[in-house]
Amino acid sequence: MELLKQKIIDSAEVLPGGVLKVDSFLNHQIDVTFVSKLAEEWYRLFKEERITKILTIESAGIGLASITALLFKVPVVYAKKTRNAALGDEYLSTKVISYTHGQSYDVFLAKNLINKDDRILILDDFLANGSALKVLIQLAEMGGAEVVGTTVAIEKSYLGGGDDIRALGYRLESLVKIKELNDKEIAFED
Amino acid sequence: MELLKQKIIDSAEVLPGGVLKVDSFLNHQIDVTFVSKLAEEWYRLFKEERITKILTIESAGIGLASITALLFKVPVVYAKKTRNAALGDEYLSTKVISYTHGQSYDVFLAKNLINKDDRILILDDFLANGSALKVLIQLAEMGGAEVVGTTVAIEKSYLGGGDDIRALGYRLESLVKIKELNDKEIAFED
Repeated sequence: MELLKQKIIDSAEVLPGGVLKVDSFLNHQIDVTFVSKLAEEWYRLFKEERITKILTIESAGIGLASITALLFKVPVVYAKKTRNAALGDEYLSTKVISYTHGQSYDVFLAKNLINKDDRILILDDFLANGSALKVLIQLAEMGGAEVVGTTVAIEKSYLGGGDDIRALGYRLESLVKIKELNDKEIAFED
Repeated sequence: MELLKQKIIDSAEVLPGGVLKVDSFLNHQIDVTFVSKLAEEWYRLFKEERITKILTIESAGIGLASITALLFKVPVVYAKKTRNAALGDEYLSTKVISYTHGQSYDVFLAKNLINKDDRILILDDFLANGSALKVLIQLAEMGGAEVVGTTVAIEKSYLGGGDDIRALGYRLESLVKIKELNDKEIAFED
């Protein structure tokens, strides 16, 4: 998606360790008018899929998923990284290893928010090693739902996480794919 | 706001310890079509204030703030509870005590996301003891910005946090105020 490529070129920053900093428009600060253009593209890609819920993970995915869900007219469900009193005892849980933060943590999803009639679109900001998407797929399927699509704004394709998910047979659409990232260059796939 | 009162009566659950569980429509699952009605009300209340940014805190506020920001045509900035690599060294920080989770933690805001020309609307899902709103006010003012309004969906007015914020001279608008909460009753202020 040309618009997102251009925004990355204009506004993103490459930090040591292969971190692409998009805090000015995609997370930390969310440029909602810009994100609504991404949402239109996500809607175009998945509008035939009879999506019933968009599933994401806190925190960076929530804003993107919420704006996108307005177009699909479906709820957003986000997996939680902390288990608070409101979650209760009836939840699904699994473990994720974060690429950005370099640590593992548990994620939680209330059982009653996903069921076997759901057709789930999984949406997140980044795809690096794919652990967040894999965990969301796992949670959705533990709940008996069907994952009809997975999508991210930015795939770091050189890390291979996206290939893993495609190899498992899931549809994955990334709005842009980055094939090389260093302090001199952000190289996109065509 | 009658619509939100009715939704709470129909869909919320009271848990031991005075926890009002709104996981089916306001957080964990976000009913975005419903939330867009709250956003319209927030827009009506603050549209004259020349808001430049909506400030919230991860995670529950992000969906609400993002949908509301679409109407104001301004970005959302959310304070973070973890300090990741992308945050860098230039950040504002302070401490918050959570009513729901019963623990204290640091919150972070990149310095470059708030500046002295900003007219900030602070928005969150709940107001209990007011610690989250106070911390957001503090971060905004540390960044030199002006807080022109604060607002939440649900104020637990019996806990007094809202009165504290009003006593400090800030405009606070709560879409509903709960004056009593127990396992038999959710009593709203008129």
